[in-house]
Amino acid sequence: MSHFLPVALQHASRLLNHGPVILITSQDPQSQRRNVMAAAWSTPVEFTPPRIAIVVDKATWSRELIESSGTFGICVPAAAFVDLTYAVGSMSGRDKDKFEALNIQAIRGRELGVPLLEASCVAWLECRLLPETEAQQDYDTLFGEVVSAAADSRVFYDGRWHFDANNRDLHTLHHLGGGQFVTVANTLTAKAVI
Amino acid sequence: MSHFLPVALQHASRLLNHGPVILITSQDPQSQRRNVMAAAWSTPVEFTPPRIAIVVDKATWSRELIESSGTFGICVPAAAFVDLTYAVGSMSGRDKDKFEALNIQAIRGRELGVPLLEASCVAWLECRLLPETEAQQDYDTLFGEVVSAAADSRVFYDGRWHFDANNRDLHTLHHLGGGQFVTVANTLTAKAVI
Repeated sequence: MSHFLPVALQHASRLLNHGPVILITSQDPQSQRRNVMAAAWSTPVEFTPPRIAIVVDKATWSRELIESSGTFGICVPAAAFVDLTYAVGSMSGRDKDKFEALNIQAIRGRELGVPLLEASCVAWLECRLLPETEAQQDYDTLFGEVVSAAADSRVFYDGRWHFDANNRDLHTLHHLGGGQFVTVANTLTAKAVI
Repeated sequence: MSHFLPVALQHASRLLNHGPVILITSQDPQSQRRNVMAAAWSTPVEFTPPRIAIVVDKATWSRELIESSGTFGICVPAAAFVDLTYAVGSMSGRDKDKFEALNIQAIRGRELGVPLLEASCVAWLECRLLPETEAQQDYDTLFGEVVSAAADSRVFYDGRWHFDANNRDLHTLHHLGGGQFVTVANTLTAKAVI
């Protein structure tokens, strides 16, 4: 049973604001072949409309699929799936279907039809690729507009994450590099000092 | 006493790879007036040479200073300084010197002369602004090349972060939004599943 509920678009940036590792999904518009890659390098760039930047190397099959389809999905893996996340980031989907190889279940996004993961993830965003800027060639940085989003309602509600000791398996992952990840810990609320 | 030691440029992306909130510093090349802002939106974009993207709104004084000087600093605040981080992000430096108002000590970067914080931070990077792309106007996304970097040697060594229960005050902060932050917790090493 899925615990995913829609996230209002004005809160979409909150899903990525704290820098989690993400899975980027894509699909060939002709053959319908799908791919999923892991990425540490992404950032929101605008609240409304919600826009994000992702860094995807020219050499990857994902880059081809995103540019040819004009769409991509972003999924935020849960801490319990750290090994799957690393595996997705360690192989190319060009010659092997990672969904089959790793037994990954995906649904189709309602707005854009991109593959979206719920069983191993705590949030997803469907994104339309924005027109290419020089940064796409120069810095492999692609911009996308979020057209729909959803998150696991056990850990994201009222427009923000609620990480605590009772939902550790649903915490996000943050990649230190080289296959080492950290999860999130205590939530701190800043106090005004001025 | 500072615990900062230089970080090799090929490891600079590791400082930001896991998505910490950052402080962006800048200085007016004429008046030498300085500024510091908090930002959740940044990402590495290249390992070698180390390049990063930051999102800085057109309306901010920092944006003016970065564009006129062609340089900026990135400092990674320590968990113990969550209130300072939020304060820095809640006021404009245009009419008030935040360094004075918040009693922030800064050193001058050796390569570019940008203000850098060590007492409240666990890492810094000196960056040269790269030539403007369309993304700078369209998405407030500025690209920079890291020319020097350093980190607190108690928590970053051998080219990566070492967060554990004994150095919690030196953990990084990750902004959930609205003044709520999470620190990092357990380090997980992914196991190969394929």
